[in-house]
Amino acid sequence: MDLSEFTITVLYIVGISAEGMTGALAAGRHKMDLFGVIFIALVTAIGGGSIRDVVLGHYPLTWVKHPEYVLLICFCALVATRIPKVVTRLEHLFLTLDAIGLVVFSILGAQVAMKLDYGFIIAVSAAVITGVFGGILRDILCMRIPLVFQKEIYAGVAIIAGAIYYISAIWLEIHILICTLVTLFIGVLMRLLAIKFQWSLPIFSYNEKG
Amino acid sequence: MDLSEFTITVLYIVGISAEGMTGALAAGRHKMDLFGVIFIALVTAIGGGSIRDVVLGHYPLTWVKHPEYVLLICFCALVATRIPKVVTRLEHLFLTLDAIGLVVFSILGAQVAMKLDYGFIIAVSAAVITGVFGGILRDILCMRIPLVFQKEIYAGVAIIAGAIYYISAIWLEIHILICTLVTLFIGVLMRLLAIKFQWSLPIFSYNEKG
Amino acid sequence: MDLSEFTITVLYIVGISAEGMTGALAAGRHKMDLFGVIFIALVTAIGGGSIRDVVLGHYPLTWVKHPEYVLLICFCALVATRIPKVVTRLEHLFLTLDAIGLVVFSILGAQVAMKLDYGFIIAVSAAVITGVFGGILRDILCMRIPLVFQKEIYAGVAIIAGAIYYISAIWLEIHILICTLVTLFIGVLMRLLAIKFQWSLPIFSYNEKG
Repeated sequence: MDLSEFTITVLYIVGISAEGMTGALAAGRHKMDLFGVIFIALVTAIGGGSIRDVVLGHYPLTWVKHPEYVLLICFCALVATRIPKVVTRLEHLFLTLDAIGLVVFSILGAQVAMKLDYGFIIAVSAAVITGVFGGILRDILCMRIPLVFQKEIYAGVAIIAGAIYYISAIWLEIHILICTLVTLFIGVLMRLLAIKFQWSLPIFSYNEKG
Repeated sequence: MDLSEFTITVLYIVGISAEGMTGALAAGRHKMDLFGVIFIALVTAIGGGSIRDVVLGHYPLTWVKHPEYVLLICFCALVATRIPKVVTRLEHLFLTLDAIGLVVFSILGAQVAMKLDYGFIIAVSAAVITGVFGGILRDILCMRIPLVFQKEIYAGVAIIAGAIYYISAIWLEIHILICTLVTLFIGVLMRLLAIKFQWSLPIFSYNEKG
Repeated sequence: MDLSEFTITVLYIVGISAEGMTGALAAGRHKMDLFGVIFIALVTAIGGGSIRDVVLGHYPLTWVKHPEYVLLICFCALVATRIPKVVTRLEHLFLTLDAIGLVVFSILGAQVAMKLDYGFIIAVSAAVITGVFGGILRDILCMRIPLVFQKEIYAGVAIIAGAIYYISAIWLEIHILICTLVTLFIGVLMRLLAIKFQWSLPIFSYNEKG
């Protein structure tokens, strides 16, 4: 495992832990039992990567190869149920960890597509699927319109992160560690600025009667 | 590419374009941002085929092999957000294009199952999955009970199209171009008549208290 | 086919029939047409196993290999729509059949994971996915928060059944027929006791304003 792989793995573990904790809180808002909480934490944290792997036929799935990640997320979900107020009070920390997770997921998605020799569009698609599908599945299970369709450019960050990573690694042939760090820096910065300044995409609201 | 393949490909492109545009309008009714609109357009247009391929283990998925379809659907979704009233006014045109798309999707589903040497039931199942799952996913993402479960025989057209295609191609060994045209003609006609005369399946309404 | 395989197959058929009938009634509560009823019956009965197979890359899926199961479930769904009151009056019978189905699905899930040489955590995960995902998909399609996240330890039974089966078969190397019978006995008993005494997991209810 080289340095860029090590960095990505550490940040991936941070990312799934944070996603698991925030997923657990989302479940708590819908009065679910402990199984529901853990299930939604797992879906939030590893659902996006699972869908990417199934769509690209990339087996075994990450968590099937590394079942220890399943245990880690269960543990984080249980911790979150014990200290929900701490998690909420640390909102800024969790938003930052979530931003890191989003960009790391996007990089991993692009890497899988590149490993399978797919081109730019599929690499960016894989980045988006990995980055946002966990949150979409979480929201479907909690019966609400997925937040990523309505809030500050979340998916946009995944698209840009996937594009930067692909372009720098494949077209510019830059060293993979530098691609990773540059993508992380730009992606996380963009996401944090989007939250701070409430950047959002135009909303398309349409009602045929109106 | 022979004539029947060419016909199907052209109609498939027409079908995903129309599905992408109507998917985008469905998203607009729920006040989604541009990413949400594009995501739902994509899911509506290529979700059914993706689920069929995943279920049958038929890799790579159509859009992964042809990423240009992804771009086409994104483009159609964006166009629909600029001219929603035109799309609504052309309702009859879009219903016809949607009917063509439904039958073409069903034929393609049956073809994939036949290519993998599956029999009648799986061919019809693959036709239905390809034809209706895009709309089911769209409705789940928009938080409403899938329309295909409640409206004029939509899935019924997919079942009959899949059955006609399989029977004529495999059992009657008719030339594939004729199978395609006959299936298209009967399927589209049936769907348009179903809309015109509001044919529907019996509704099963059950309430244990009643 | 040896005795343990025969037992599991017979109980699997009983299980999918019962799940198909109760799935059909759930659809009836939401005023769906016959296609919707059949679709939801199918998803309830074979959705969990399908997701397990897709996640583990275990092809072909059970129902693709045995299309006769698809026909059986369609038939059971149609029967249920003719005699909904009988099904409701036989609630205790159906709860018992559902309990048997849950444990059989869990055993089959663990078996698939074991056949693919996965360890304890993935075997238990496969048991849970097989046991509960059909109900989760049914509830998503009917637009309600999945019951398995909120009611008497349903998923807990799948976890324990998967664990007992794996431990007895792999670690204790007990004859597979005995593993099957012991798992069935403990699992079904646990589920029926959970219903009778309304055992449930702690609910995690969280509201950041409260």
